[in-house]
Amino acid sequence: MTDHGRDMAGSIDRRTMMKSGGAAAALLTPGLALAASANADRTAVLKAIDTNQAASVQRLADWIKLPSIAAEKRNIDEGVAHMIALARDAGFPTAMPVPTGGVPSVFATLDVGAKHWIGIYFMYDVKQFDPAEWTSPPLEARLVDRPGLGQVMVGRGAVNQKGPEMAFLAAVRAFRESGKKLPVNIALIAEGEEEIASPNFAKAISHPDVLPTLKRCVGVFIPSASQSPDGTSTLTLGAKGAVELELISSGERWGRGPTKDIHSSNFARVDSPAWRLVQALDTLMKPDGHTIAVEGWYDNVQPLSPREKALIAETARRTSEAEVKKQLGVSRWINDESWGQALERLASQPTINIQGLVAGYTGPGGKTILPHRAVAKMEFRLAPAMTKEEAIDKFNAHLKKHGFEDLEVKITGGYGPTSTKEDSALVRAEKAVMERLGVAYTIIPRSAGSWPGVMFSGPPLNLPAAQWGMGHGSGAHGPDEYFLIRSANPKVMGMAEASKAYVELLYEIANQATIRA
Amino acid sequence: MTDHGRDMAGSIDRRTMMKSGGAAAALLTPGLALAASANADRTAVLKAIDTNQAASVQRLADWIKLPSIAAEKRNIDEGVAHMIALARDAGFPTAMPVPTGGVPSVFATLDVGAKHWIGIYFMYDVKQFDPAEWTSPPLEARLVDRPGLGQVMVGRGAVNQKGPEMAFLAAVRAFRESGKKLPVNIALIAEGEEEIASPNFAKAISHPDVLPTLKRCVGVFIPSASQSPDGTSTLTLGAKGAVELELISSGERWGRGPTKDIHSSNFARVDSPAWRLVQALDTLMKPDGHTIAVEGWYDNVQPLSPREKALIAETARRTSEAEVKKQLGVSRWINDESWGQALERLASQPTINIQGLVAGYTGPGGKTILPHRAVAKMEFRLAPAMTKEEAIDKFNAHLKKHGFEDLEVKITGGYGPTSTKEDSALVRAEKAVMERLGVAYTIIPRSAGSWPGVMFSGPPLNLPAAQWGMGHGSGAHGPDEYFLIRSANPKVMGMAEASKAYVELLYEIANQATIRA
Repeated sequence: MTDHGRDMAGSIDRRTMMKSGGAAAALLTPGLALAASANADRTAVLKAIDTNQAASVQRLADWIKLPSIAAEKRNIDEGVAHMIALARDAGFPTAMPVPTGGVPSVFATLDVGAKHWIGIYFMYDVKQFDPAEWTSPPLEARLVDRPGLGQVMVGRGAVNQKGPEMAFLAAVRAFRESGKKLPVNIALIAEGEEEIASPNFAKAISHPDVLPTLKRCVGVFIPSASQSPDGTSTLTLGAKGAVELELISSGERWGRGPTKDIHSSNFARVDSPAWRLVQALDTLMKPDGHTIAVEGWYDNVQPLSPREKALIAETARRTSEAEVKKQLGVSRWINDESWGQALERLASQPTINIQGLVAGYTGPGGKTILPHRAVAKMEFRLAPAMTKEEAIDKFNAHLKKHGFEDLEVKITGGYGPTSTKEDSALVRAEKAVMERLGVAYTIIPRSAGSWPGVMFSGPPLNLPAAQWGMGHGSGAHGPDEYFLIRSANPKVMGMAEASKAYVELLYEIANQATIRA
Repeated sequence: MTDHGRDMAGSIDRRTMMKSGGAAAALLTPGLALAASANADRTAVLKAIDTNQAASVQRLADWIKLPSIAAEKRNIDEGVAHMIALARDAGFPTAMPVPTGGVPSVFATLDVGAKHWIGIYFMYDVKQFDPAEWTSPPLEARLVDRPGLGQVMVGRGAVNQKGPEMAFLAAVRAFRESGKKLPVNIALIAEGEEEIASPNFAKAISHPDVLPTLKRCVGVFIPSASQSPDGTSTLTLGAKGAVELELISSGERWGRGPTKDIHSSNFARVDSPAWRLVQALDTLMKPDGHTIAVEGWYDNVQPLSPREKALIAETARRTSEAEVKKQLGVSRWINDESWGQALERLASQPTINIQGLVAGYTGPGGKTILPHRAVAKMEFRLAPAMTKEEAIDKFNAHLKKHGFEDLEVKITGGYGPTSTKEDSALVRAEKAVMERLGVAYTIIPRSAGSWPGVMFSGPPLNLPAAQWGMGHGSGAHGPDEYFLIRSANPKVMGMAEASKAYVELLYEIANQATIRA
């Protein structure tokens, strides 16, 4: 489910970008002076990244060819084994599966005797895909020239999240291959059920072989490709929570209506589970079509702080509303609100969304049946300080209050919102590296998309948690997903440059953690 | 869409059946005395049916192997040509396609210079099918032994409606082959869009080459296999009308929400066409889940007449509620009503049914999208004296009144209800033949299922219109549809006996029409 804040908020406009124009290009020539922090070790590490780049690209292609998909129970054992092999190959001496009750996680450590530990979160699973929608086979990992960008790798998982993760692994490997010491120890926890909303990941974190090490970390981040095609980036301080569920009306549970699809003429005398679903759904939403009617839903929703409002106003000023509307195919925001208001809603408002409706006959034309079952695929997005448990309890209480207790609420995964302090060592390091690399960025108080960062930012760890990384890709969850390998655009980093940015970040985290955690 | 009243009302219970037990078996031995109406011509015709039975079964198999499906635009030209060949082969000297603007109809006449004409309605199209659901290939027309019944042919269209229609054609052919004169002239009109609710059939009927001949008919019937496995039958005096439609909510038409599926996090700031569909749907139905909230919907619904109520009470007395509930997988009727009340509802109440719901992501698990489009596949069932046009107008007016004018109402076909007088020559002939053959039957004032009989019973023809035929089959629209070929059950007729019953009916129609139209 991992989303990039960039996609949600829109990219920085051209005028702003020009202010920092071209600075990112410094990284494209390895060994060029990297401002004040340059030193001989770093130079050797960066060189090793270039030396090994072809092999890294091949490793990414091999990984894309092995899609682990929890929803389809596809390549589970193979995915675990491959993740372990990738970690070992990058230099983690220990890497092991962690049982979760569902798809196993993988935990790997690389203790170089440094003073500080950093936690890295990976997802090794990918979203389902339909090859018919793709212009090249989604598991081929084909290298394609994309005008204005450069050479991209097209494949499921390319940007979400294997490309950025492989760029990070290449950075770690470069330390080993250049014989240089990492500035921090690394704890890597990789999940295989991120795309089904991490139903069992909390068990991996609390595993006795995992928790003590994670507790020592100054923060946790997931590698991501956060640059827009114009080179700008975002820094997100949190994310909404998400709970995925199905709301199911059926004759079997209701005790009324049919227990199998029957001829539709019978609706004259037999109740309809499909109409019942419609009626139950309609109680959830106020007439405006977006305000949630579930009692107490907004009780724990925190208003935006003055700093958050200021950050959003800054984003509104620096980004193009027209461009985002065009990308989304949207002509109006809710209530015809302004760009700033839309961004505030995106950062602050919980939602109950209908992802899909499925009942009875769904093929072409009609079919004269009275369906015995009707399903709404839904998801909650949760704003701080809502919790997953609170939302589920209130949802169930609402159905009960309105007499829809017979409807099944099938929770398939989810987690609460994530928040990380702007003055944490992790965020300070992120900012410092982007500034040093000349990457213009906006600070997003809260991504409307979701990732299981709350597993780290919430109890028992209570750590800073972030998504961070340079480079570019797009098409997560959709067809023709890609990750930029060799950039032909001086403002956007390719894979090798993204690896180098992780090298910078690791140094900077050590630096910032030494100053103040 | 053709439905058998039998499936809707339930079969006569065993006790009633025993009163007429075995009488239908008389037909199984060709040439046995058929009460008062036996004569030498008839004997020769019935013998010809037996002689040609193997060829008739083969013709049915060949027809099943060529499915015409209007919804899929499958085998349109081939279906027309095959229908024409079948009519000519059965003895109709003229058979020609009739343009309708959609899939052509076929019109064939057989004028033997008799005093009276009878109209026959065929549908030559079949319902869509999913081979994965079948135990033998749906186009193989495999002959299978079915315990308690005998040898059946399994295939799409076997009972709906090719089997009964082929039994009728075999009856017509038997006159020619035995050199005997038909007692009536026959006008055969065959439709290729029955399964998509006859959107263009009115044009075929009003065609100048068709209408004058149909106007001369004493009535029109569609061959059907109306016997239950216990041998009992039904005689229906009408059918509800049906209108198929899709109600579609989309960002494109609304001007709000997205015009393509976008990431679901955007629901915090972008309106949802799926929620809009839910809200529009919920206005259509009262809280009880079955009473229609559209203004004026019931204005023209006629209450059941005393005769209709008496017929339904008789059906309720003679049929097994428990058996029907079991067949339908239903434990309670609407409002926990009685069997008699349920049958009255079935005969008298209009419905607005949800056949299917389709929006956004419909695969396994979830997918974090905000769908740009949501569709409810629906159908109206109309009771006398509602009309199709009235229902559509009131539905549109309702949407407008509630502010949902942007929703698209896509009517894909339909027609009003059918009613035929019990004392018409056609119905008198049907009764007389069933009584002579010893087939116990119930009279159903109105089938809740629908067929385009109103095309004949309404203007401009205003003719008696009926579904009639002996024999048995099941599985219309579902998998493993079958038609009984060789009966091993003395109470149920096989295909040859069904053909013979049509011979009886043709003689009896001539007889009754001579007495009084």
